[in-house]
Amino acid sequence: MAPVITLLTDFGSSDPFAGIMKGVILAICPHARIVDLTHEVPPQDVRTGALLLRGAAAYFPAGTIHIAVVDPGVGSRRRAVLVDASGAWFIGPDNGLLQPAAAARGIGAVHELNRAEYHLPDVGRTFHGRDVFAPVAAHLAAGVAPAALGPVVEGLEALALPEAAVEGDALVGEVVHLDRFGNLVTSIRAADLARFRGSELSVSIAGCASIPLRSAYAEGARGAPLAVIGSWDHLEIAVRDGDAARTLGAGRGTVVRVVSR
Amino acid sequence: MAPVITLLTDFGSSDPFAGIMKGVILAICPHARIVDLTHEVPPQDVRTGALLLRGAAAYFPAGTIHIAVVDPGVGSRRRAVLVDASGAWFIGPDNGLLQPAAAARGIGAVHELNRAEYHLPDVGRTFHGRDVFAPVAAHLAAGVAPAALGPVVEGLEALALPEAAVEGDALVGEVVHLDRFGNLVTSIRAADLARFRGSELSVSIAGCASIPLRSAYAEGARGAPLAVIGSWDHLEIAVRDGDAARTLGAGRGTVVRVVSR
Amino acid sequence: MAPVITLLTDFGSSDPFAGIMKGVILAICPHARIVDLTHEVPPQDVRTGALLLRGAAAYFPAGTIHIAVVDPGVGSRRRAVLVDASGAWFIGPDNGLLQPAAAARGIGAVHELNRAEYHLPDVGRTFHGRDVFAPVAAHLAAGVAPAALGPVVEGLEALALPEAAVEGDALVGEVVHLDRFGNLVTSIRAADLARFRGSELSVSIAGCASIPLRSAYAEGARGAPLAVIGSWDHLEIAVRDGDAARTLGAGRGTVVRVVSR
Repeated sequence: MAPVITLLTDFGSSDPFAGIMKGVILAICPHARIVDLTHEVPPQDVRTGALLLRGAAAYFPAGTIHIAVVDPGVGSRRRAVLVDASGAWFIGPDNGLLQPAAAARGIGAVHELNRAEYHLPDVGRTFHGRDVFAPVAAHLAAGVAPAALGPVVEGLEALALPEAAVEGDALVGEVVHLDRFGNLVTSIRAADLARFRGSELSVSIAGCASIPLRSAYAEGARGAPLAVIGSWDHLEIAVRDGDAARTLGAGRGTVVRVVSR
Repeated sequence: MAPVITLLTDFGSSDPFAGIMKGVILAICPHARIVDLTHEVPPQDVRTGALLLRGAAAYFPAGTIHIAVVDPGVGSRRRAVLVDASGAWFIGPDNGLLQPAAAARGIGAVHELNRAEYHLPDVGRTFHGRDVFAPVAAHLAAGVAPAALGPVVEGLEALALPEAAVEGDALVGEVVHLDRFGNLVTSIRAADLARFRGSELSVSIAGCASIPLRSAYAEGARGAPLAVIGSWDHLEIAVRDGDAARTLGAGRGTVVRVVSR
Repeated sequence: MAPVITLLTDFGSSDPFAGIMKGVILAICPHARIVDLTHEVPPQDVRTGALLLRGAAAYFPAGTIHIAVVDPGVGSRRRAVLVDASGAWFIGPDNGLLQPAAAARGIGAVHELNRAEYHLPDVGRTFHGRDVFAPVAAHLAAGVAPAALGPVVEGLEALALPEAAVEGDALVGEVVHLDRFGNLVTSIRAADLARFRGSELSVSIAGCASIPLRSAYAEGARGAPLAVIGSWDHLEIAVRDGDAARTLGAGRGTVVRVVSR
């Protein structure tokens, strides 16, 4: 079965950087299947990259190799790592980007990628996606053992993504992401709402209270805000046929509260 | 031969939604060849999605499976369908999006996608692209019979894209799409112009009359408008080395008239 | 081994033009591996297309077929060509776009693509990417001999990309490209700096002098400009955690000077 390699970066799509990484991969492992997650992570925004990677990786087949590059410290002393995460592999800078996705599966061995024979011959200090991460992923896909790619090291850099917290009767979270439709993705997950089981819920955000929880976007009144368990399995605030971020004047970091009615 | 699956959505490229659909597909049908048509359909613009899907599908090999997701009604009672279209397959919401492309080939059986064993285990109500359409397409690509994916139903939702009309001596249409270069794609097709066979044509739009029909963009004078039969086999208004939409102040819906000189 | 075909165009990503080319390719050569370099070359900007193609092609495996389409003269008398470039193939309009990339490898035979049996049946005059370049690339990938695709012709159109020049003690170049991060890619290459071997360098641009040459972005002070040998193996001016183009008020064409301290 052809190994799957995914790419998540902040490279944008106007430069051929992602395409170059694919060239490097195919030169080493011609039968790899390469899938773009996104290249539009905001420049150097490790936190958003980590959030999107964690959300996406769960849907890939066992054995998938995920390369992620949001790497403001490229060329500094930050390590380059390969993380064995219980049936998936994560490759990238050790700056927190990989940790939430790997932790969601279970972090196994962490290898420091210091074996130059598996990198491009001339490793620069500005583009490790091309020079280190792509060739290592391709060699792993082609059957090289993880141990050959670098020694096991301790201490994958952690990154704490915002979580929901209980405050009295309320569950409190924050907006962690805006999608293209202006939907506000919050830090409150479907599982967090289990404590309210049985009661109807009411959501408040940005001075707008009593937002109802619905089960689909199409159940809201046109132009009125509603809450749903969205595509990320997180609570989202949306406006039917509208843009919730603009309508509510909310954005990343805006506080969200859930109470039972 | 590896089955080809295409994706056309309004998901944009900053979130990994299209990538997630590819992960779901490859987990079920590892040898599928996945091609992006576009993910930049304007949010919830079913009409533009239908136009682009119809224009693109014609160029794919027999047996191609096209997934299209522009789906403001996701989670409501709108049906999810698989359309057998004479050698091509269309999968998506039954909201008109698939119908013009399927009708261009010839609509055969329409299957309602209600067999949960071919969907992801936990189908949410916000992201059927991932939970229903991607797994169904992958199972179809892997050899599952259409009848197993859902029963044949009646009445695919139709969507009438604008067509050219004859008004006296003139052929009248409208702008249906703007491309990246600012070219104005109209509802008038090459075949519609057959009635003028032999005469020179003159096109008028937005107060600008006597625009000549040329056979290539490069035949216009720099900065002057010209008409061509463009990439979609539709009449287009362009400005050589310029932006026709801006120059002419025209956009979607602007009326276009063609007469013989 | 599956042949690799890359695509570089100015089509943008909102229309499915690149996807259509992939459909055409897969209908002829189902096992081709297709990689996008970029579709965001500024409209009709042959020079930027040529620069990016030259920078990217070096990283692909031997035998790769590169299709490039930035083609303001489509439908005019400009030739469509296939260039045999010492182990890589370049296909596109003969308008200079292909020449720098082909010359970097060594230009062999140039074939004019005038054999209609290897094009789509109805070749229009607006979209040779779909009608000529994609099918020719697919036939080449499927094993058709280059000579069958068109006769050898003389004189590939040249395009001179800016180079560094020596002026007294200084090396002088210009900004040739801006990347997504606002980094200013210059015409000065790593190899050009060999003449200064051993001395510390100082870079000036846009009234800002004494910019130090560092070996990684992360070595600069936050907000201060620095120079690095960047991902393209060219001298770049960057601002750590910032946008050099905006900070320095520089853009394409801005002059850059390098002297030893």
